[in-house]
Amino acid sequence: MSDINQFIEEAAALVNKELDWLIPAEGQPPRKLRDAMRWSLFAGGKRFRPALMLAAGRAFGAADAKVMRTAAAVEMIHTYSLIHDDLPSMDDDDLRRGRETCHRKYGEATAILAGDALQALAFQTIAEDEQLASDTRIRMISGLGQAAACMVVGQQLDLLAEGQSVDEELVESIHQNKTGALIAFSAEAGAIIAGASDEATASIRQYGKRLGLLFQIVDDILDETEETVSLGKTAGKDAAAEKATFTRIYGIEESWRIARRIAEETTGSIEFLGTDGKILRSMIELVSVRRS
Amino acid sequence: MSDINQFIEEAAALVNKELDWLIPAEGQPPRKLRDAMRWSLFAGGKRFRPALMLAAGRAFGAADAKVMRTAAAVEMIHTYSLIHDDLPSMDDDDLRRGRETCHRKYGEATAILAGDALQALAFQTIAEDEQLASDTRIRMISGLGQAAACMVVGQQLDLLAEGQSVDEELVESIHQNKTGALIAFSAEAGAIIAGASDEATASIRQYGKRLGLLFQIVDDILDETEETVSLGKTAGKDAAAEKATFTRIYGIEESWRIARRIAEETTGSIEFLGTDGKILRSMIELVSVRRS
Repeated sequence: MSDINQFIEEAAALVNKELDWLIPAEGQPPRKLRDAMRWSLFAGGKRFRPALMLAAGRAFGAADAKVMRTAAAVEMIHTYSLIHDDLPSMDDDDLRRGRETCHRKYGEATAILAGDALQALAFQTIAEDEQLASDTRIRMISGLGQAAACMVVGQQLDLLAEGQSVDEELVESIHQNKTGALIAFSAEAGAIIAGASDEATASIRQYGKRLGLLFQIVDDILDETEETVSLGKTAGKDAAAEKATFTRIYGIEESWRIARRIAEETTGSIEFLGTDGKILRSMIELVSVRRS
Repeated sequence: MSDINQFIEEAAALVNKELDWLIPAEGQPPRKLRDAMRWSLFAGGKRFRPALMLAAGRAFGAADAKVMRTAAAVEMIHTYSLIHDDLPSMDDDDLRRGRETCHRKYGEATAILAGDALQALAFQTIAEDEQLASDTRIRMISGLGQAAACMVVGQQLDLLAEGQSVDEELVESIHQNKTGALIAFSAEAGAIIAGASDEATASIRQYGKRLGLLFQIVDDILDETEETVSLGKTAGKDAAAEKATFTRIYGIEESWRIARRIAEETTGSIEFLGTDGKILRSMIELVSVRRS
């Protein structure tokens, strides 16, 4: 695992540099809005999606610099969705990535606005990325817009399902929308930027979709089996709120079995890459064995 | 005024058709999210920004079809910002365009999500507009992203200024960001789509900036002088909340004087258009004499 940990650290450093440049600590007022955006952006997130995009880009030979601006945009969308999902009227969470959520720290209005600003900036950032050809930027914005809309749909389904009886199909649909779409886009985007063939891009998208599902199943298991302190967010919260989770439908043991099966299928999606797929394969392992 | 009223009706019909196609009443669940988006989108808004974009486009000879997709995207951004600005933690408003605000009708969580989805769809819509060349789409997304970020900044400044002492500069900055940026973009976008020269585009942007300022001054005056029923939103609310408004600084009479001066300057920005600027000139009048 040491290679992959090193890669994750490298990817995080690259995307952090981009984000710090895109949303600097000093600048035009209002200071409070900027602080709130940075509070959530630089809360020590793992930068899983940017790392995935970078890994997919490298697998097909893209220069890092061509990938990182879009990777930063993806992290902005991810962070905005966390800020909004944590709001009192949504999941009402006080803790995120080990510290106060944005609205606990800056108030609800500023948290909503910080999320809104991050979403706008994400699309603007890609539109103004001179490293990419116009057509590529447009594919990125179209795909990211679609993923961002899916995330909203997933969150709405998730809220509607609370306390309701849910079936396998609904849980999968919630997860595919809420987390799967952006993870799948991240993988796909790296391949597109690298100029991979349509066939290879479709395989990478399939890999991303499966990885996203795996990510979420493990998330559901961790929510029930780990402590708040190791998770960095409130543990046991989903079960308490009767959320639509894999563990609620299958139980923990069966959920692990499903996770292992999906991990194998995910590996299958990138078999064609051979040794070029080394990091992408390691990411599957990383998602499977994580503790937070 | 009959020509301009007819034009406004025509523009509204064109953009409503686009919006109805882009976010149809029937489709994938969740129904509640779709209903909430349409509730606010089709609340009888005047479609001022799409009309402005269409007018600017026609002044330089753009085909309507090339303008309307971006115009719909602008209206999505405008509507999303109204939904979020009305939220309890922001301006806490119950009434908008003569009916219940989105969160009063669908709850706070769904209102936040409906706004979020509209923002994502706005950018996706432009990215996928095959009527426009890639480079034009990118200019549109960059400009719209910038305007959307400005709107958030304006709203944050507005909230921070409540009950504080404010000066002319701050009030102008709030308004330029909160409403001016999107209005200026709307005018500019029409010219860009039509392929106007850089010089002409800059003039149209200047026209849009001034028109936006005029729009806001009149808005502030109406808030103090009109009744709730004619406004379609709660009257007198800004004064009660000690908002940063022109009327609070200058009083009503002086605000009218300033409005007239800006109207003249706005007319000056499009003098170069001659008879081609007829509708753009009428829009200045329309903004000046409106009652809601």
